[in-house]
Amino acid sequence: MGTFYGIGVGPGNSELMTVKAVKTIEQLDILYTPKAHKSALSVAEQIATPYFTDSLTIKRRHFPMTHNLEEKQQSWNEIAAEIVQDVKAGNDVGFITLGDPSVYSTYSYLADIVRDDVPIKTIAGISSYSQIAAEVSIPLTIDDESLEVIPATASLDKISQALDVNDNVILMKVSTKFEAIYKLLSDRELLGNALLVTDASLESEKTRKLSEMDVSEKVPYFSTVLIKKQLRF
Amino acid sequence: MGTFYGIGVGPGNSELMTVKAVKTIEQLDILYTPKAHKSALSVAEQIATPYFTDSLTIKRRHFPMTHNLEEKQQSWNEIAAEIVQDVKAGNDVGFITLGDPSVYSTYSYLADIVRDDVPIKTIAGISSYSQIAAEVSIPLTIDDESLEVIPATASLDKISQALDVNDNVILMKVSTKFEAIYKLLSDRELLGNALLVTDASLESEKTRKLSEMDVSEKVPYFSTVLIKKQLRF
Repeated sequence: MGTFYGIGVGPGNSELMTVKAVKTIEQLDILYTPKAHKSALSVAEQIATPYFTDSLTIKRRHFPMTHNLEEKQQSWNEIAAEIVQDVKAGNDVGFITLGDPSVYSTYSYLADIVRDDVPIKTIAGISSYSQIAAEVSIPLTIDDESLEVIPATASLDKISQALDVNDNVILMKVSTKFEAIYKLLSDRELLGNALLVTDASLESEKTRKLSEMDVSEKVPYFSTVLIKKQLRF
Repeated sequence: MGTFYGIGVGPGNSELMTVKAVKTIEQLDILYTPKAHKSALSVAEQIATPYFTDSLTIKRRHFPMTHNLEEKQQSWNEIAAEIVQDVKAGNDVGFITLGDPSVYSTYSYLADIVRDDVPIKTIAGISSYSQIAAEVSIPLTIDDESLEVIPATASLDKISQALDVNDNVILMKVSTKFEAIYKLLSDRELLGNALLVTDASLESEKTRKLSEMDVSEKVPYFSTVLIKKQLRF
């Protein structure tokens, strides 16, 4: 029997993969990747491509981006069954995931389905929020400060609570919720303490102060907001 | 003029450094590292050693581990002045830090002192909590869940608040505060939801359920507690 590896490829730049992630990919027999829209490669696959060997079999599979949980679970179950079959046949099988596989990743669902049937190993990756702090050379936390990571898709009450009790807050997935987030930060006079970072570590990267943005702006998909209550940007 | 690089070397295993961290170290002229107690190398230096070139100058400097802020600031200022001198003389200069340089790192203080005088770049690293989740293949966060990272040295009130409002909590630096943390989790019936991980990614690594530990146990220095309210270990 082989092993199933969940591999974090980091935030975007191929050099932000760990040596262990690279070595793991180099010795894989089969790699599952999310199938991107149209003919383009998924971002995760673009990042990892420099490390693919000639003998690696790539299996691109469709993971539906939908709020229909049943539809998602059905495709996870199908892909998981295929992975278990491949591992039981003696293959080392990988699944690559953007950022860190332990942070809001589809890998967590696959791992849960297959963990009783095959050995699994998780290879940590640099998360987008870790990279954002690095880009601007500003700490996420110092001394006894706290950091909360929460998706903008959580309830506004929960996000508000996060801002109440923490020194630093990372808001993930802000793209579709930008207007509400902007208003919340404006009401709390925290616009001056917030940065929006898009495409961290990619050539298209952009860092903006929320105080210089407009509430109605369209915000790209890979955008994260960093709020530091002790710091004005 | 050169550049000052803050480089995260990850949680312990040399292969958990990023390709970028390795390449950056390989092209450095001078590397500052924390001087360890007695004659041993610091953990950060042990991790990065495999990537040191013959031409690299290592400058081991003493960073006092004390609650005396003035004493700490004095040594940061001295080391920072030396770094600025080296960078202005045209050297690429690095400082290595365990885990992620953006998370509770001495690098943040050095960067703040030198950032107006020399160019600085921060290379993200895998944090201990990211590695802990990877070791046990359990997600830090899924769906709309939140994650709070807080040091056990923060007030018990703040830690209690963190447990109130978050689905997942990482308690860093628990070693000297274990008894209080254990009691807090016991009072809140959360012992069964907590894991203690020591020396993540090193050979000496150990993962234990808090429900199987004793309140009076001595806990090693590099220990972190992961609490997942939705999961019993």
